[in-house]
Amino acid sequence: MITLAHGNGGRLMRELIRDVFAKHFSADTTADAALLPRLEGETMFTTDGFIVEPLEFPGGDIGTLAVHGTVNDLAVSGATPRFLAVTCLIEEGLALATLERIAASMGRAARDCGVAIVAGDTKVLPRGKGGGLYLSVSGIGTKNPGAPPGLVSIRPGDAILVSGTLGDHGTAILLARHEFGLHGDLISDCASVVPFTTAAEAFSGLRFMRDPTRGGMATVANEISLATNRRVTLEEARLPLQEQVRGICDMLGYDPLYLACEGRVIAVIAPAQAAALLAAWRALPGGNGAAIVGAVEAGRPLVVLRTALGGERILDELEDDPLPRIC
Amino acid sequence: MITLAHGNGGRLMRELIRDVFAKHFSADTTADAALLPRLEGETMFTTDGFIVEPLEFPGGDIGTLAVHGTVNDLAVSGATPRFLAVTCLIEEGLALATLERIAASMGRAARDCGVAIVAGDTKVLPRGKGGGLYLSVSGIGTKNPGAPPGLVSIRPGDAILVSGTLGDHGTAILLARHEFGLHGDLISDCASVVPFTTAAEAFSGLRFMRDPTRGGMATVANEISLATNRRVTLEEARLPLQEQVRGICDMLGYDPLYLACEGRVIAVIAPAQAAALLAAWRALPGGNGAAIVGAVEAGRPLVVLRTALGGERILDELEDDPLPRIC
Repeated sequence: MITLAHGNGGRLMRELIRDVFAKHFSADTTADAALLPRLEGETMFTTDGFIVEPLEFPGGDIGTLAVHGTVNDLAVSGATPRFLAVTCLIEEGLALATLERIAASMGRAARDCGVAIVAGDTKVLPRGKGGGLYLSVSGIGTKNPGAPPGLVSIRPGDAILVSGTLGDHGTAILLARHEFGLHGDLISDCASVVPFTTAAEAFSGLRFMRDPTRGGMATVANEISLATNRRVTLEEARLPLQEQVRGICDMLGYDPLYLACEGRVIAVIAPAQAAALLAAWRALPGGNGAAIVGAVEAGRPLVVLRTALGGERILDELEDDPLPRIC
Repeated sequence: MITLAHGNGGRLMRELIRDVFAKHFSADTTADAALLPRLEGETMFTTDGFIVEPLEFPGGDIGTLAVHGTVNDLAVSGATPRFLAVTCLIEEGLALATLERIAASMGRAARDCGVAIVAGDTKVLPRGKGGGLYLSVSGIGTKNPGAPPGLVSIRPGDAILVSGTLGDHGTAILLARHEFGLHGDLISDCASVVPFTTAAEAFSGLRFMRDPTRGGMATVANEISLATNRRVTLEEARLPLQEQVRGICDMLGYDPLYLACEGRVIAVIAPAQAAALLAAWRALPGGNGAAIVGAVEAGRPLVVLRTALGGERILDELEDDPLPRIC
């Protein structure tokens, strides 16, 4: 079990760092800062905090979520992720075995993504002042030649694509909590999106990419609408949703368009290249759920869901907190 | 007051970021990652987590602690701090006014240190699962020509210097808690150490620098002893201690050598240059407490405090958690 003494700078902390973190990360644990190999090109820098309950869930854990989340923030910004730094805020009483499993899966996820965890810090939170484990991961990447120009480049007529099914992560976390007496075999989509962003960067008409984490697809659509001052229309019939996600959301009254994904990308692209990007994405492992789901239009700023029957429903920006705390 | 909805990705979160963080930081709040200006030379990367109670204390707050702490980790590593990324884990129920005061003091501290806060993330922790506010700050710096070679370069005979009085931060936090019925006007030493590390890097005999935060002076001395496999001797009569720190520690039974500083540097330097470094440090604002406090010696690995009366006391690595939770 983790005790407050694991955070005091003394022997227990030194051994924790040596036996758990140094084993799975690439960090020189005696240094205050890591010296990086010389970086070619322009540098991008990001940070993200991670809180999730339960810490381990079907398809991942807070560690894989944190590595992929930071890698994905760099990837959708048009960067090749290179180096990560991890701060662990560990609650007193967390089982050492849990911490080691999570550190090991972070190490594996980092190696799979081709990034090195080069720096870290550990603090112990007093019992009752934490959620077991909180992580903050920062990442450094190098900007790719095909990096999308961003929100300002979006024009009316541009197509909106998503790289896979929506709401899997959010729904998997709901199920993992066993709060509603629901069970299922759904797994989180938690994964690196680098193969998808790399494929998208081959297209000159790529405008913008975002990973629909907190607030899901509907929140990214609202962000696009707000930033461009345009209408965004999503076609309900084209939205890729797993049957289990649809069923559970129907039962609980959640809208899956607001649930988090942790391994999907939304891309905005010139209409002439949308079909080719879709084909490229569908050809990737895990890309069979990719779809063209909507478009940016000339109307006033709003996000509209066009239903299968031809009706329209406005997808507002989240106001209150109608969703369960899933991340 | 902060609500869970401030973390849901919707309107309240967008407004919080715009009205509190964007106002005080340099970050483009619509981007997943910040594009940095081209960095000259080698890059250094660090991360640090910050927890402190109370959040605001005489001489600083968790925000200044976080900015200075990260800046100082880069500085003692021989780097010029350039860019910071901040993750805020905010507990539901924190007063917005408190958050804004802390964000403002982070912005001021960053400007004073010549660093830009270029990226951020905000998560809201459910009530009772946080300590008001936890911060994680990552930093990027560029390595200086005079960066010390590090622990491996330390030789027997090298002198150990500290840039100011010891234990001020830890004692100020103790007082700010009003737990022992104690009062005083002591303020934390929370500050950037860049002027001190810059001065030290002018000396060719500089071996190693560290800021004595968690575990204080005694913990850094143990780290030096462990890494070099040498004896480290500290001279009690030379250790700079404020009367108030000495008095409070005597009363409570704490050893000030284990209490945290947040604006001091310990340097190991070739003996022939120790006096000149001391003079350089004493000439700096805030440097009048600087002292040569001990030396690395040829004996077996131990940290020994030579008392004013000629006795010797071993300063062990911290084992348990005899200290109050001060950071």
